[in-house]
Amino acid sequence: MTELKNDCLLRALLRKPVNRTPVWLMRQAGRYLPEYRATRSRAGSFLSLCQTPELACEVTLQPLVRFFLDAAIIFSDILTVPDAMGLELSFSEREGPTFAKPVRSSSDIARLGIPDPEVDLRYVMDTIRLTRSELGGSVPLIGFAGSPWTLATYMIEGRSSKDFSRVKCLLYDQPEKMHKLLERITQAVTLYMNAQATAGSQVLMVFDTWGGILTPRNYREFSLNYMTQIITGLTRVVNDKKIPIILFTKGSGACLGDIAATDCDAIGIDWTVDLNYARSQVGSHVALQGNLDPAILAASPENIRKHVIQVLDDFGTGSGHVFNLGHGIRPWTDPEHVRILVDTVHELSSTYHNQDSTE
Amino acid sequence: MTELKNDCLLRALLRKPVNRTPVWLMRQAGRYLPEYRATRSRAGSFLSLCQTPELACEVTLQPLVRFFLDAAIIFSDILTVPDAMGLELSFSEREGPTFAKPVRSSSDIARLGIPDPEVDLRYVMDTIRLTRSELGGSVPLIGFAGSPWTLATYMIEGRSSKDFSRVKCLLYDQPEKMHKLLERITQAVTLYMNAQATAGSQVLMVFDTWGGILTPRNYREFSLNYMTQIITGLTRVVNDKKIPIILFTKGSGACLGDIAATDCDAIGIDWTVDLNYARSQVGSHVALQGNLDPAILAASPENIRKHVIQVLDDFGTGSGHVFNLGHGIRPWTDPEHVRILVDTVHELSSTYHNQDSTE
Repeated sequence: MTELKNDCLLRALLRKPVNRTPVWLMRQAGRYLPEYRATRSRAGSFLSLCQTPELACEVTLQPLVRFFLDAAIIFSDILTVPDAMGLELSFSEREGPTFAKPVRSSSDIARLGIPDPEVDLRYVMDTIRLTRSELGGSVPLIGFAGSPWTLATYMIEGRSSKDFSRVKCLLYDQPEKMHKLLERITQAVTLYMNAQATAGSQVLMVFDTWGGILTPRNYREFSLNYMTQIITGLTRVVNDKKIPIILFTKGSGACLGDIAATDCDAIGIDWTVDLNYARSQVGSHVALQGNLDPAILAASPENIRKHVIQVLDDFGTGSGHVFNLGHGIRPWTDPEHVRILVDTVHELSSTYHNQDSTE
Repeated sequence: MTELKNDCLLRALLRKPVNRTPVWLMRQAGRYLPEYRATRSRAGSFLSLCQTPELACEVTLQPLVRFFLDAAIIFSDILTVPDAMGLELSFSEREGPTFAKPVRSSSDIARLGIPDPEVDLRYVMDTIRLTRSELGGSVPLIGFAGSPWTLATYMIEGRSSKDFSRVKCLLYDQPEKMHKLLERITQAVTLYMNAQATAGSQVLMVFDTWGGILTPRNYREFSLNYMTQIITGLTRVVNDKKIPIILFTKGSGACLGDIAATDCDAIGIDWTVDLNYARSQVGSHVALQGNLDPAILAASPENIRKHVIQVLDDFGTGSGHVFNLGHGIRPWTDPEHVRILVDTVHELSSTYHNQDSTE
């Protein structure tokens, strides 16, 4: 593998000195880009876009052509893992993701396969290998998976849910069964993420979109617990390089100390807590990634700049900050507004770093 | 007015000693009750149910016939105020609430009426008077309104929203305009709540359903700020009785100290923070109301009891706790499970109070 030319993200995630704050954006490859919509339309469906390495690689690279981003993130979906476990995923414009075979009974859980990533999710691994090769060491490639809890919500509900009544009923009434399911998903996700690292992902991120719907006790027992097990199960060094791990739970403001106590390297933060508060909660244990409200991208260039500066100010000086949104880019976003965000971080963030201390 | 027979709620809200923890439930009058569905069907539509005092009073009282609750809450909807301001509210099964004339321009804001509660919202005032009379002093009657910020989200979006892009764009790009709108709503809500107290509401609650979608800074500036102004504008003593005020912002775990610093008497807490944590944040400034996850009501009687006890334990001993859910009762809830919740609080909560210290 070629040497990495821009290692700003990796250094910041490991809290090593940097010249400026690295920036990438959740859903940076996606519907807000006309070139994405063109490729998506060529692919026929969202799933076939995910499952065709050439096309998935193409959309992964699209935002890097436009913007000065410090990382690529593999184009995929967290639900490919439950699909490979046997749930039969499909997407519709109206309904969003749907599983033909949701998990409802103990026998459904027992029947769940543990996918062999190089066989059952080969298309992801091929996308990673192809994208690494295409990147040619320009920036690091981030791999990701859904948290066991978040995957379980979709696997039990069978689709997106408003009140999560089915999954919560299982949690409250049959916690042992819920734990059995989560153990199985954890096994699948750990294998999957290790395979991603072997295939070439240089950073791994766990998306826990729905951890925030739980009470703090249940969050620790049913979500954070399994993310911790994944971290324990990951090969942390591949080809002599440490693979930083980012945990992102949306709405986890009350549990930042608990998340920092895992062996993760960085925590993703949404916009409902300020970064100075988050930093005060986690000390120097971990780096922080975030946390601009994606809604700001509808505002004027002047106001976008103002709020980017606010986020940089909130984190303050020193390494350990990766600039990002607090959630994915919205489909209605004007790409030129994304450029303003990225360029502002590049132009202004060096003042938050002590140039002399850079190794 | 007849003397109040059960003043447990009022005492707890003012942190006076009580023999047991009072309990009422958000949306205790609602779709989960077959008798509610019968009255709703007689009314023809949800709006005509709200606007017919005899029927609104009937459904307000229904849960008190079934369960040993310590309060009635007037049956109404937070969107009746914007409707009276001229936005023309309607409800459909599929779409939920919709405004025919959403607020989009400065002239829309200038055009907004400030309703005279005894004229434009007379049906609410009549419902309050009728319900007070029907209650005969058995339990206190709670009146409520939506927070200016939460009402503004519906008034600008025109309906329920997923990502609040329109309202956030206004906030970020034209904060002065947003403040103008919020000032106007604050004026309307203050008049409306004062009129409710005069008509007979013995407790007032502000529902800030969408304060939690804001950054902490914006929450303070655009939501809490206006709830504070409402509190300042309220006549706090009516007929020599203090009217306790409860503020409830869903997802406000990071801002509890700020909310406690207003002149409210109690804070509503959702289930995403523990009551012991909440209590540590607010000290003895205010009472706390909450915070059982409404999803628990789908669980077994045994598990419901276990989690009710957990909430009582989390608050701990002493007055200043009002038992409630962390959000409204779900429509699918089995009324018998609600009974288990209410009865458990009644049976077990006396052990959290020092009998001797009761006045």
